[in-house]
Amino acid sequence: MPYCRSVSSTSSNRDQALNRLQGRLDYQFKDARLLELALTHKSHSRAHNERLEFLGDAVLGYVIADALYDDQPSLAEDALTLIRAALVQKDTLAEVALGIGLGEYLRLGSGERKSGGRQRTSILADTLEAIIGAVNLDGGVEAARSLVLRLFEERLAEAGARGASKDPKTRLQELLQGRALALPVYEVVATLGSEHQRTFTVSCQVRGLALTTTGHGSSRRAAEKNAAAAMIAAVERA
Amino acid sequence: MPYCRSVSSTSSNRDQALNRLQGRLDYQFKDARLLELALTHKSHSRAHNERLEFLGDAVLGYVIADALYDDQPSLAEDALTLIRAALVQKDTLAEVALGIGLGEYLRLGSGERKSGGRQRTSILADTLEAIIGAVNLDGGVEAARSLVLRLFEERLAEAGARGASKDPKTRLQELLQGRALALPVYEVVATLGSEHQRTFTVSCQVRGLALTTTGHGSSRRAAEKNAAAAMIAAVERA
Repeated sequence: MPYCRSVSSTSSNRDQALNRLQGRLDYQFKDARLLELALTHKSHSRAHNERLEFLGDAVLGYVIADALYDDQPSLAEDALTLIRAALVQKDTLAEVALGIGLGEYLRLGSGERKSGGRQRTSILADTLEAIIGAVNLDGGVEAARSLVLRLFEERLAEAGARGASKDPKTRLQELLQGRALALPVYEVVATLGSEHQRTFTVSCQVRGLALTTTGHGSSRRAAEKNAAAAMIAAVERA
Repeated sequence: MPYCRSVSSTSSNRDQALNRLQGRLDYQFKDARLLELALTHKSHSRAHNERLEFLGDAVLGYVIADALYDDQPSLAEDALTLIRAALVQKDTLAEVALGIGLGEYLRLGSGERKSGGRQRTSILADTLEAIIGAVNLDGGVEAARSLVLRLFEERLAEAGARGASKDPKTRLQELLQGRALALPVYEVVATLGSEHQRTFTVSCQVRGLALTTTGHGSSRRAAEKNAAAAMIAAVERA
């Protein structure tokens, strides 16, 4: 029965592959069909991973927010928001996916396979989210939390350190770029006091936002930073 | 000691108020200072609720996604995304906050208080998120899940029913409006077959997105629905 042998050997290869992947994830699925569904792109089957991706995206956002809240007690909401956005963006997720060699396990339609789908950023990122969603279903939120914290351990530590050291002007620029808004314009609107005790007042405007904030400081640069910090707060509130 | 009596009576009034609120939330804080922080607007103190709001927003997004995934097995990712967005938007959160009478418990600066801050949508919504974040810290994610599911019980049931019945054209329109994009334009690009066995091909274009999808169907309307469904998927992927 060569046909049967062939099927059984293929299936056993796949089982071995899935076991390897579970080793890399350091998570053993109770229901391996959830892992297989998470690996299935919509180009492959009608039963695909998009619903799991929806769930995993939310789990990931929560776990990262919760970790940053605890790890970065000195960072304000705007900085936490920026760091989280950088950690969960598609490029970062695709890097994490490549780090565990996710590409080789994907189930893609033949068109996607031939056009390099295994290396495509969006497919890798979405599949990683789907796996996080599958672990949440299979083992609960604490199992998903452990997985996310393992996968993002170094990036969480680095991002916290970088985010804390960035000045408000850089953070504002990134925030506005992330929302496809124009860059801010700073302008000195007042200079008070004698030469050695001067206070600068700087306005910060963002075209298209109808928002102006002001900042004060003993140098133009310090006043700009304060105006930028006020604008970050205003944009986050808007 | 009239001064001391007055302070003690104010503090005890506040304790009574916080107990009433915890009754309405059906959650008793181990550390009541977390609840007080969640109720504190940045116009009131330097120690305010914005970091808790960041955390609570993520908890809320996760709990709602998890509930929708389980409750709505027949809905695809795009529909789940739309329903979740409607449930966690500021207007809905403010309604939920008003439903538990949150306004009277807020700690606002005098400017905000005098200008109607207790009724302001953004303040009510943000404070509700901060409370969800505080419960997550105080009692863990399962306590926060119970709170969110209690607060959103009816809305979750209604939204699922409404979302499932909406056709793809309506859902696409809402999705694009939510992203401040132009409305889609549908155009019949081919009509094949004899009069009683006709197949329509319709294109769907969204200006500013550089995306075109097509749909087929036995009527123009059916083809439009399929083109809209494909556009929803494309926009979600983008």
